[in-house]
Amino acid sequence: MADTPTPAFSVRVRVRMDNVPGMLGRLCIAIGEGGGNIRALEGFEVKSAHLDEDVVVDCSSEAHQEVVRQAISEAPGIEILEWEDRTFAMHEGGKIEVLPLAPVTDVDDLSMAYTPGVARVCLEIAKDPELAHRYTIKRNTVAIVSDGTAVLGLGDIGPAAAMPVMEGKALLFKHFAGVDAFPICIDTKDVDEIVDFVIKLAPTFGGINLEDIAAPGAFEVEERLKEALDIPVFHDDQHGTAIVTLAALDSALKIVGKRHGDIKVVVAGVGAAGVAVSKILMNAGVHNVVGADRQGAVYDGRDGLNSSKQWFAENTNPEGLRGSLAEVLPGADVFIGLSGPDLITVDDVRAMAKDPVVFAMANPNPEIRPELIGDIAAVIATGRSDFPNQINNVLAFPGVFRGAFFVGARSITESMKVAAAHAISKVVGDDLRPDFIIPSVFDPRVVTAVAEASAAAARADGVCRAR
Amino acid sequence: MADTPTPAFSVRVRVRMDNVPGMLGRLCIAIGEGGGNIRALEGFEVKSAHLDEDVVVDCSSEAHQEVVRQAISEAPGIEILEWEDRTFAMHEGGKIEVLPLAPVTDVDDLSMAYTPGVARVCLEIAKDPELAHRYTIKRNTVAIVSDGTAVLGLGDIGPAAAMPVMEGKALLFKHFAGVDAFPICIDTKDVDEIVDFVIKLAPTFGGINLEDIAAPGAFEVEERLKEALDIPVFHDDQHGTAIVTLAALDSALKIVGKRHGDIKVVVAGVGAAGVAVSKILMNAGVHNVVGADRQGAVYDGRDGLNSSKQWFAENTNPEGLRGSLAEVLPGADVFIGLSGPDLITVDDVRAMAKDPVVFAMANPNPEIRPELIGDIAAVIATGRSDFPNQINNVLAFPGVFRGAFFVGARSITESMKVAAAHAISKVVGDDLRPDFIIPSVFDPRVVTAVAEASAAAARADGVCRAR
Repeated sequence: MADTPTPAFSVRVRVRMDNVPGMLGRLCIAIGEGGGNIRALEGFEVKSAHLDEDVVVDCSSEAHQEVVRQAISEAPGIEILEWEDRTFAMHEGGKIEVLPLAPVTDVDDLSMAYTPGVARVCLEIAKDPELAHRYTIKRNTVAIVSDGTAVLGLGDIGPAAAMPVMEGKALLFKHFAGVDAFPICIDTKDVDEIVDFVIKLAPTFGGINLEDIAAPGAFEVEERLKEALDIPVFHDDQHGTAIVTLAALDSALKIVGKRHGDIKVVVAGVGAAGVAVSKILMNAGVHNVVGADRQGAVYDGRDGLNSSKQWFAENTNPEGLRGSLAEVLPGADVFIGLSGPDLITVDDVRAMAKDPVVFAMANPNPEIRPELIGDIAAVIATGRSDFPNQINNVLAFPGVFRGAFFVGARSITESMKVAAAHAISKVVGDDLRPDFIIPSVFDPRVVTAVAEASAAAARADGVCRAR
Repeated sequence: MADTPTPAFSVRVRVRMDNVPGMLGRLCIAIGEGGGNIRALEGFEVKSAHLDEDVVVDCSSEAHQEVVRQAISEAPGIEILEWEDRTFAMHEGGKIEVLPLAPVTDVDDLSMAYTPGVARVCLEIAKDPELAHRYTIKRNTVAIVSDGTAVLGLGDIGPAAAMPVMEGKALLFKHFAGVDAFPICIDTKDVDEIVDFVIKLAPTFGGINLEDIAAPGAFEVEERLKEALDIPVFHDDQHGTAIVTLAALDSALKIVGKRHGDIKVVVAGVGAAGVAVSKILMNAGVHNVVGADRQGAVYDGRDGLNSSKQWFAENTNPEGLRGSLAEVLPGADVFIGLSGPDLITVDDVRAMAKDPVVFAMANPNPEIRPELIGDIAAVIATGRSDFPNQINNVLAFPGVFRGAFFVGARSITESMKVAAAHAISKVVGDDLRPDFIIPSVFDPRVVTAVAEASAAAARADGVCRAR
């Protein structure tokens, strides 16, 4: 699967070719023989005896980029002038900027936006701290906080190396929901220190989005910050995933004609994300959830459970199932994988109940390759963008925070998450098909639907600030 | 002096007037009788029997706004429809936003700016952390850190209430120098905790601008952070003030025909800013600096000195002067006030050397009112925008950071500050007059001159990153 050329490994190449007929064809053949996909040819410039041409080529890896480079440079009459990795070029200097919302063109502007006028605003906030939500960026600004310990699938790469992901997230917040977000990558892995840091940071921000913090620490960080702060705290790796999973399940159950209350769901992976997914399913009416790790099903009484497994032991597995994943899967209606590659087999899926629903969300390599069960499973979803039905958090977090800010929510409640999930699923509408159970992240209706649903739920829960 | 109407207290009023001749005149008279200054009349809309009109009126205080409101509402045939305090309106929702620098319009963009492409950039930074200065916002982004303990002249108003000032500062960074800056207002006043917080925060930012942190803590915070971090750390209240003061002194000495090495300077106010100002003057060639607090001159051997006064005792007052401010001022060429209102008298200034230079920079009320010494002092400067020669930090900090980022400086050195000061003074050029010793903050040559000078000094000092 890693062999498909992708824009993530694309290069822009500027070549100089002899100005004789057939050279462009020769260039394309060389690239094709190197296995590169030509994404764009940007029209050549004639330089008397030469033609200069920009071409964008998708490759499948850095090694493959070298193969393509070799193929081009070996083509007679073609010389490489420039070679640019487009992904790195896009990241040069970072991906966000901080821009003024107020004019500063003359002394009068300065005297309102800065001294002496600004002192008046400061004094009002000092008198009534709630006014910070009106007169500062707190009204619309999220901190994306990470310690860099569990970045994407890369593990503990540290706070500096985590920055490109958090900047990317800030980009998505603004682009999809108009929410201002700023990355805060911090140099500590200690749970107490992270909690303490974010509490000290809180006056600046209107919301906290925790990101890519390793389990089980992330779980505790979120719980303690929710307790300590009066602004929304959201651990996207848990709750973003949970919301979109429930949205996908809503749609999948429509397709197979089953109801939330009647199904058995097996969740592989019982860390923080597993807890969050199981919780939201149960809040949406699912009764029978069974969690499993490498040792098999988690049941009440099993030894040596950490805090999230303990939650599973106390709240799930109503039949008290024991045994390996393969032993508890038979008869399950839904499999949800939040673990690692190739965890289940085709026979495991065959043993599930009629019309099995398989969400194999491990990244980059799912718990089972979708092409192996295309004719067995009724619905398949993954975490990847190159398969149908990508469980993508981008569907959730921008709208959830937009809704929360819109009504001045002090927290993100369980029912806000459930409402957001149902809203995402509803956007699919009549387009529902087994390979289209969740909308595109680029569907502009998603953010509005999610924001409205979570805002309404926040109001119903009574967690909004007085305005 | 607080009685001059200013945009800081301006209001936008929408009135409905009877549609009969002379009403606009009546409105203007009412506002004038209330003491308001009409800044703009925005053209009326005729609504059959009525005229609706927007008028912007500068007032001098909130109480004065009420006087103007009263005057308008008592005018016959005039009704107030809307009343908006323009300063508060400008601050609604905060004064900065975070915008994308990379496109996210389709799946291909996403796969470069976010997953999976972003993982490649993360891994490169994990391998070589210096690349964070190339591929993240670190290259151009400053944290404006405050604990809210010494905000403007308002004192300890806390981190939430400090936000409007720090947002304003971020605005100035971007507007004047294209530097991205983000406010970080933190909920602790403890020096150890502030230092610890900023060290943990550092992976996110390329520079730290400390702001409005009370002395003497601010002093220690800066010293310890400079020691701990490999990015520029700059306490603007100290060094911004110092740079612009030296710039003003350069110009003032040209006017009075004296040389840095020959003058005696008395500095009233021996906190962190006093130390920074005295240091930069001495680095620029001034030998004879005397610091004074309420007890008088600081001299070697005086009892009960805190850390900044100790610095004065050890490094200044070469003649070992003792006695009150009035006793040490006679014969001084330059007075620099960084203290409080009405500290010196007309006679004190008369007792100074020929052509006295008086920088009375206390805000909002200077050490002596400029109008009292207009015919005695050769050059007068203040911290206020409504007098000539405002010592305004905005002349310094944007360009200093722009220069530092341009060459990848790891710190802001003493010679970078001196170079920045000289550069500011040089921009004045042939326009030099006693009431024009420093350029306008809106002079576009300033930021370029400061950036180039401080970048060149950083190179000469060898503090730049390898690129």
